Amino acid sequence: MSTNFFKDNTDLQYYFQRGVDWEPLVRLTELDFKLPDGHRSMAEAMEFYEEVLTMFGEFVAREVEPRSEAMDREKPTLVDGEVKAGKAWDEVFEQIRELGLHGLPVPREFGGMNAPVLLYFMNAELLGRGDVSAMTHKSFHAGIALALLVYSFYEGTTDFDLDKLQITSSRFEEAVREIAAGDAWGCMDITEPDAGSDMAMLRTRGEQDKDGNWFVTGNKIFITSGHGKWHIVIARTEDDLSLGLDGLSLFLVKAYEDNADGTRTRYANIVRVEEKLGHNGSATCAIEFDRSPAHLIARRGEGFKLMLLLMNNARVGVGFECIGLMERSLRMARAYAQERRSMGKTIDRHEMIAQYLEDMELDIVATRALTVHAGYHEEMAQKIDMYGRSLIASGRSIPSLGLNTIEDIERTTARHKWESRRMTPLLKYYGAECAVANAQRCIQIHGGVGYTKDYGAEKLLRDAMVLPIYEGTSQIQSLMAMKDNMMRILKNPQAFLSAMAQLRWRSVSAPDALERRTAHVRYKAHQALQILLQRTATDKFKEIKHLPMTKWKDAFVQMDPKRDFSFAMLHAERLTRILVDATVAELLFDQQQRHPERRSLLERWLERVEPRVRMNMDEIQNSGERLLRDLNGQQDAEAAE
Amino acid sequence: MSTNFFKDNTDLQYYFQRGVDWEPLVRLTELDFKLPDGHRSMAEAMEFYEEVLTMFGEFVAREVEPRSEAMDREKPTLVDGEVKAGKAWDEVFEQIRELGLHGLPVPREFGGMNAPVLLYFMNAELLGRGDVSAMTHKSFHAGIALALLVYSFYEGTTDFDLDKLQITSSRFEEAVREIAAGDAWGCMDITEPDAGSDMAMLRTRGEQDKDGNWFVTGNKIFITSGHGKWHIVIARTEDDLSLGLDGLSLFLVKAYEDNADGTRTRYANIVRVEEKLGHNGSATCAIEFDRSPAHLIARRGEGFKLMLLLMNNARVGVGFECIGLMERSLRMARAYAQERRSMGKTIDRHEMIAQYLEDMELDIVATRALTVHAGYHEEMAQKIDMYGRSLIASGRSIPSLGLNTIEDIERTTARHKWESRRMTPLLKYYGAECAVANAQRCIQIHGGVGYTKDYGAEKLLRDAMVLPIYEGTSQIQSLMAMKDNMMRILKNPQAFLSAMAQLRWRSVSAPDALERRTAHVRYKAHQALQILLQRTATDKFKEIKHLPMTKWKDAFVQMDPKRDFSFAMLHAERLTRILVDATVAELLFDQQQRHPERRSLLERWLERVEPRVRMNMDEIQNSGERLLRDLNGQQDAEAAE
Repeated sequence: MSTNFFKDNTDLQYYFQRGVDWEPLVRLTELDFKLPDGHRSMAEAMEFYEEVLTMFGEFVAREVEPRSEAMDREKPTLVDGEVKAGKAWDEVFEQIRELGLHGLPVPREFGGMNAPVLLYFMNAELLGRGDVSAMTHKSFHAGIALALLVYSFYEGTTDFDLDKLQITSSRFEEAVREIAAGDAWGCMDITEPDAGSDMAMLRTRGEQDKDGNWFVTGNKIFITSGHGKWHIVIARTEDDLSLGLDGLSLFLVKAYEDNADGTRTRYANIVRVEEKLGHNGSATCAIEFDRSPAHLIARRGEGFKLMLLLMNNARVGVGFECIGLMERSLRMARAYAQERRSMGKTIDRHEMIAQYLEDMELDIVATRALTVHAGYHEEMAQKIDMYGRSLIASGRSIPSLGLNTIEDIERTTARHKWESRRMTPLLKYYGAECAVANAQRCIQIHGGVGYTKDYGAEKLLRDAMVLPIYEGTSQIQSLMAMKDNMMRILKNPQAFLSAMAQLRWRSVSAPDALERRTAHVRYKAHQALQILLQRTATDKFKEIKHLPMTKWKDAFVQMDPKRDFSFAMLHAERLTRILVDATVAELLFDQQQRHPERRSLLERWLERVEPRVRMNMDEIQNSGERLLRDLNGQQDAEAAE
Repeated sequence: MSTNFFKDNTDLQYYFQRGVDWEPLVRLTELDFKLPDGHRSMAEAMEFYEEVLTMFGEFVAREVEPRSEAMDREKPTLVDGEVKAGKAWDEVFEQIRELGLHGLPVPREFGGMNAPVLLYFMNAELLGRGDVSAMTHKSFHAGIALALLVYSFYEGTTDFDLDKLQITSSRFEEAVREIAAGDAWGCMDITEPDAGSDMAMLRTRGEQDKDGNWFVTGNKIFITSGHGKWHIVIARTEDDLSLGLDGLSLFLVKAYEDNADGTRTRYANIVRVEEKLGHNGSATCAIEFDRSPAHLIARRGEGFKLMLLLMNNARVGVGFECIGLMERSLRMARAYAQERRSMGKTIDRHEMIAQYLEDMELDIVATRALTVHAGYHEEMAQKIDMYGRSLIASGRSIPSLGLNTIEDIERTTARHKWESRRMTPLLKYYGAECAVANAQRCIQIHGGVGYTKDYGAEKLLRDAMVLPIYEGTSQIQSLMAMKDNMMRILKNPQAFLSAMAQLRWRSVSAPDALERRTAHVRYKAHQALQILLQRTATDKFKEIKHLPMTKWKDAFVQMDPKRDFSFAMLHAERLTRILVDATVAELLFDQQQRHPERRSLLERWLERVEPRVRMNMDEIQNSGERLLRDLNGQQDAEAAE
């Protein structure tokens, strides 16, 4: 067994030591090493980060992983309205609190260590390899603290002293401090019984009394770590249902208050803890709000927009969770295969098993490439936007990062944001699908003992099965990837066509065979997008041509996403798979240009994805017409009723 | 909810009413309707069979399916050395016993109904849709009774009176009668802690005392329904380990005897009941034999061969289990999708979900086509061999089936056997893989509630996960499909090449487009086999050319399966997928020629499989060299040590 989950992980070490361009991120985080009590140099900061990873890698290997079976078995239960965790769970979280790790990415002003969020995510991966339930629960500490800080920056209720380079006050300071100290945690209350992926159907109400105080009333379900104190709740504040998502607002609700006499006053009630397939350590709660006192965050009607602000980061977090679980699956499967003998050799030498193990490893490499890239750019965008804007507004600048004007800030933020946004649905989709597939492989490689409770392989599959569901299902990720990419092309078709032509050219003329193959796979991804766009336009045209020509323009502009995108929606998952394959090739190509030791990974990736890119293209081009005819026929029949 | 699992199943009804050529099978089973107490005509027999299916379809819908959650929850436990089942489980099996269904395919002489095994399998599918644990346990009743009859026919200890057309005595009559009455059941004891797929590693011993009595000693694990009375045990009888599989013999061991005073004497002990991911109703036992009295079946050293005799049928049984589970997944998913609204419509109208539901339906159609075909031909082969041979040996014949000489019997048996054998690894592979994938789809379509225990979707996945493992893993099925097909070609390469040429010709010249496409997919399967064979021969040649030419012939004949087939073994799973896709196309093509209503299924199947056949070919042709170099490098290094 490994005694340190950081030290034994070559691919993760690559990102920590060379793969990530840490300097701009650390400079932003430490404001050019000028923060009071901050690190004084890159070297000092990196040394500290490495100590954190090394210490936590050992902690997870020694203290968490051995308790993961018990944390699964001793499920949290609802006793007298409060959730009671098991013994192993409490032991793990008491130790994490003692290590002071809940405040890792929280500003020092609030008791944290002000580490980059990316470092915090790398830690999360290590914890996920020990136990994904524990990892998820831990993320509802610092994750919520950071969310509240971002919201408070956004609404202008955090004061940052530009001379002292310190936060002097913040609206949500109480919550952030409690969380950083490990005395409380938070959660996100979104889903309701009749509103899952479709948030326009949310019915929980936010209402104001005549004194201006807000109250939230309604039922939320599937609230991960919902037994926490600080609930970020999305609720409907506008009566006009036609406003849809614009009728939603975001609130902070304190679910309870611990009184000096040891009693607890509850403002929101836990009505149920779900019995789930897996992820058992983590409590999934149903919460009832009945005129619970609430704080409106930012403005009415901004709820959905504020949620989106954090969604990328939440999904990147799930990406690291997927990686952690996949690392565990691979290592468990490999260890067993290296021991188990059959037909005269250990089964890791059997051709098919050897291939499975290689594929599992490559899935981790691919998911980590996407996820680290997304996490890095998301954090860059948020920090440039948050700090850079106020620095420049006050006549300062960050010349070391080339940020001298507001235009620099806007251009750079937009570039980082798109990098994060284009990766996020891909990493959430691919990470979750691979986590499930690899947990299955792990069971299959174990054979009969994989199906029993003896080795813990079956727990990995039970834990993994929620990954393609929560934080946006795999289907929602596919639709997002499709729509984001199509919209971007429509905004600037010329840039798209010219990029496509360049890829085409590189795919035939680049001197390096791997560059040609990478360009070809990326060209195919562009081609897939082009096919979906062309078909969408054609469908629209078919409909329009029955109208008088004077109405064409209006009809064309008013796209009906439920029908006009029908073809693209049918093929969204295939498109997403192609985009994953092409984007990972792009990232690994860039890596091997800088670090030649990554070249063999690119080669293996191309070998693996070229056939499946061809298959997905094939299916986009040659299937689905009959199904769409059937579906549209049904819709027409309904409309005629 | 459906109230009859037979009546609501169009695809199953198709096979019962039109798809299966029942007449030859029923004539064989009822010996041309001349059996005493037998059916007098086809019409009478079919009416009876339909009554059985209709009655059982209702029974499963009303009595089993509603108890399936409880059967999962109330796991069997080991109390004082005996397995105690839960309440719901006992209720179900008491009712099945009262219905008299354990003897359905058992000859009337032993208290059964002498129905075709294929009818019994269709019943099994219905029960599998209710609960796969219950289905599996039930199959260890009649399945073992039939196995014992087949063995006894084989060793010549069952007397069949050719004038009275009756079995007059049989060595295993006690066991068969008890099982048909539902008073006992049996099991197959194969796996040991260090011997799973590799049976040459079995270590349980069969020993004879000086009076000729046999005793079995050793530990068996993963014995499904191992708390039964009649154990068919495979054990090593020969000291010479180099004999490998030929050193194994088969035994019947009575695990216990119930005494008149209500006590039980045990000859084999249950030492453990496994805690598993799913399939919880069914007890999976570890059994300890310590000089347990045993009956040698047939001759010493025939153990492996005798096991193979039954293996096809056991795998066909798993095929029907997979179908049952997939029917449940599909219907549960569809019902939920038709109710659940999102984005303005029920989610069954969402393009991706609609496609998933269609794919799930097609997976069932494909698996049932393979499984019914295999079950039919396996039964035909066994019955022609068993009855036909003795009839003809005694100067009788079965002219209605064209069986007039021993040569007719041998030719016909061989043809049926190959039909069964070529289908079996395909149906076991595809059925099990699809059962898992579709249970996952079912969870995914349910979203969050699919991950909780509320709807029962998660149980289906837990139950399904054993299917790719037991009765030969998916990897073993792939290797079997590869080897069986390659060996057959080597026996008659000319027939293979001429079939391939014909398919090629039909793929371009047939007037019907679906015939051309079917021929093309089948041509591709032949091409895949040809590539694997050519590569195997080339590898062999490379090795041989370093030897003196005088040794070439010997070296060529002595194939080393561990190395020479390396390329084919690596690609065995891809080949198997291509074979499944092509074989199902072939079966559906034949069906639609006779029954045009099946044409749209063929069309959908082709649309679905054409791209993936191309992808698997692509991977066979363009991947794996690096992996094989690495593996062989490792082997060479080891050999050099």
